[in-house]
Amino acid sequence: MVRRIVIVGCGVSGTTAGFYARKTDRTSDITIVGDEALPEYSRCGLPYAFSGIVPTMRSLIGYDEDFYEHTNRIDLRLGVAATRIHPDRQTVELNSPNRRMTELPYDSLILTTGAHTTTLAVPGSDLTGVFTIRTMNDVEGLANYLKEAQAKKVAIIGAGLTGSEMAEALLVRGVAVLQAEIVPEILPVILDPDMAAIVREKGLEHGVEYHLQSTLDEILGDKGKVVGVRISGHAYEVDAIIVAVRVRPNTELAKDAGILLGESGGIRADERMLTSANNIYAAGDCIETFDLITRRHVFFQLATTAVRQSMVAGINAAGGDARYPGSTGVTTVKLFGLEVATLGPTTAMAEKIGITPVSVRITGSTRLSYYPGGKDLTVKLLANRENGKLIGAQLVGEEGATLRCNFASMAAHLGLTVQDFSEIETCYSPPLAPVWDPVTIAAQALLRKLRPPLTKAPTTRSNS
Amino acid sequence: MVRRIVIVGCGVSGTTAGFYARKTDRTSDITIVGDEALPEYSRCGLPYAFSGIVPTMRSLIGYDEDFYEHTNRIDLRLGVAATRIHPDRQTVELNSPNRRMTELPYDSLILTTGAHTTTLAVPGSDLTGVFTIRTMNDVEGLANYLKEAQAKKVAIIGAGLTGSEMAEALLVRGVAVLQAEIVPEILPVILDPDMAAIVREKGLEHGVEYHLQSTLDEILGDKGKVVGVRISGHAYEVDAIIVAVRVRPNTELAKDAGILLGESGGIRADERMLTSANNIYAAGDCIETFDLITRRHVFFQLATTAVRQSMVAGINAAGGDARYPGSTGVTTVKLFGLEVATLGPTTAMAEKIGITPVSVRITGSTRLSYYPGGKDLTVKLLANRENGKLIGAQLVGEEGATLRCNFASMAAHLGLTVQDFSEIETCYSPPLAPVWDPVTIAAQALLRKLRPPLTKAPTTRSNS
Repeated sequence: MVRRIVIVGCGVSGTTAGFYARKTDRTSDITIVGDEALPEYSRCGLPYAFSGIVPTMRSLIGYDEDFYEHTNRIDLRLGVAATRIHPDRQTVELNSPNRRMTELPYDSLILTTGAHTTTLAVPGSDLTGVFTIRTMNDVEGLANYLKEAQAKKVAIIGAGLTGSEMAEALLVRGVAVLQAEIVPEILPVILDPDMAAIVREKGLEHGVEYHLQSTLDEILGDKGKVVGVRISGHAYEVDAIIVAVRVRPNTELAKDAGILLGESGGIRADERMLTSANNIYAAGDCIETFDLITRRHVFFQLATTAVRQSMVAGINAAGGDARYPGSTGVTTVKLFGLEVATLGPTTAMAEKIGITPVSVRITGSTRLSYYPGGKDLTVKLLANRENGKLIGAQLVGEEGATLRCNFASMAAHLGLTVQDFSEIETCYSPPLAPVWDPVTIAAQALLRKLRPPLTKAPTTRSNS
Repeated sequence: MVRRIVIVGCGVSGTTAGFYARKTDRTSDITIVGDEALPEYSRCGLPYAFSGIVPTMRSLIGYDEDFYEHTNRIDLRLGVAATRIHPDRQTVELNSPNRRMTELPYDSLILTTGAHTTTLAVPGSDLTGVFTIRTMNDVEGLANYLKEAQAKKVAIIGAGLTGSEMAEALLVRGVAVLQAEIVPEILPVILDPDMAAIVREKGLEHGVEYHLQSTLDEILGDKGKVVGVRISGHAYEVDAIIVAVRVRPNTELAKDAGILLGESGGIRADERMLTSANNIYAAGDCIETFDLITRRHVFFQLATTAVRQSMVAGINAAGGDARYPGSTGVTTVKLFGLEVATLGPTTAMAEKIGITPVSVRITGSTRLSYYPGGKDLTVKLLANRENGKLIGAQLVGEEGATLRCNFASMAAHLGLTVQDFSEIETCYSPPLAPVWDPVTIAAQALLRKLRPPLTKAPTTRSNS
């Protein structure tokens, strides 16, 4: 009998799962149901299409419908919502605008329902000119609104990844930016404050007006449209507002079907991406992910994590056998000319979850001093004092942060101690890299902090 | 009693050993004896000082003499040759030009005697205008000679790393280059022919006149000076010739003292960098290094390997306890606008030493297709068919090869299988890196080649 695979969600997760399911079982019936009108496009690319660096929104679309329908023989149903799962009789109810409600039977179901943005419950939230950033519709809506309003200034609430990328994109478009963040420093989830300050300094140079430790009290309106914001008691004139705060997994469909959620609020899936329900898999932003460093289940919002999970879900849903080991959460972002790459918990987060972190920060160069063109690279490494393992890396610099963070990602994935990590050889050539890589220099410095001072135990060996 | 540490050689190895010895034992007497007139300078920087990219030769010098003498309290004896070691009475004989022969006693001796270039025994080898490239003297001599002779064309014998870097440097100076290589492709030690061909194509575009599978028959002279070369039977007019063939370890001093050499011809040292003689350590280009991938002792000529070995030698010679685990031989070089980074044996070398390699080559991009500025990156990965371990990586592209090779270096250092390697998450952001890194894509492709086809064993699990 032909295996019927249904995938709910046509983002990068649903699409990846579909393609891997097809590779695994050439004869199965595969259906992807997506509630947006478009097939998968790069959500991460939206700020760059908004700024104009990527010339058109449509170029963010990964594959045309023909590639789904004909090359991969996937029944693509776009603009269709899945409204209910019946795990008992293995069907999914669809609410299709053009036909009456249909019930789609499955042998394997993959949930890639993604996540949704949230807003803040403040007066004025319902005014025209309040935006969140998740879909192409959101960003096109923002772009059109700013154009029509001839907007000069936008307030962004939240200085995480999306808020910060949108701040830069607005500046590229010539729109002034006021950015408010409730905690004392930007990028609080991915960077320690001392590292984030380097990025914020560049943001200031580029013209961002930061309001830290500040809360949005009210969105001010006139004739139903945004005309300002009141932040921590002060009013500011702005033409629009972007709320870029918490993103939450879309779990309603799973929850209604009795599928278990995890501690973080995402759908719980095992290493085969199987949920608590028979033959129902889940992957991507809607699930919680096993964090290889903290050994906890967390809610990452990473395309790299999503595609790896979706590959595994697609293979298994089609009768194969693949495993997803978990994620280090390695993340990178380019802001104001800086590469910002991170991995593992921040110092504050580590302490919060009961790890005693030891950290070191150094600034090295991406070349030897005599060779022209080397750039400063600031590297902060965190270790677990208990066992000497590398638990975090934060890198900020004009070049070379991203790929060095992958190097640290491998070490953290494998549970290397800082000693082990410091012993991995890196390559050198004057035009390309220094003899001692900045990451290695940081590891050696961290090692000295982890070791008991020699003077305290002069007769014993150092633990090198 | 104060520990007396003597270091023979003032290259990067001797200098590194000296500084780490000082850090380890604040009270020791440390002497470095160097036969060149200058303290340590970057040999790897010589082609760039020659080309003018690095403005002056002198900027290659790492530290001024004051930093040795006063900051680190090291007795620096430059322009002095060590002529004999007496392991029985723990002394080194010096031949100092300004004083009579002296005999220097040591408690710990570190040999960092480096390596030397070799020439070819062909007619005309003794003509003026024949150069090898190792020291600053060599390169200054070449530069002066070319200037005085108003040289238009130079022949380079050998298309390894040094020969290739010098070819590009000569072109930057406006001098035409004929380059001969005895084997059928350039860079034969570090790249498979299919990967080296990409570099050679760029070299051709830049104007290098390659003669592959060609041997130097004779150097042609007139009035004692080079006027041409005869290569594989054909004569070519050139104004000078650079012989960039085999480099050999300087082991005379060690051999005369009865210190054991290894299979590759370098001094044999254990993981504490101790030679076969009591209290005599060795590090850098004069020793043979344990290759972590092939598990053989080989002769690497890498500054990164040298400084790590020298750190260990310096610490141990001063009473500490450090270990050098071995090297993956990870290497990078920039040639004609391409980053060329490699690791592990070539396919031919792997076969020669009894490993059955399986390899894959893919060309990916350093960005997603929609984001402007992505560059092609060609990645070749090699695995051992017996155990599925990653044994080699060869990367060629305009950017991103070097740091990705470090990522592969960690995997090879730790003995990861290609499966394990493919599971390490890499970070993504449109301006910085693609969702699936080219190295991961190559690893996944290699995995498919390593796996027995599913059709042959339909009832068993695939080994994913």
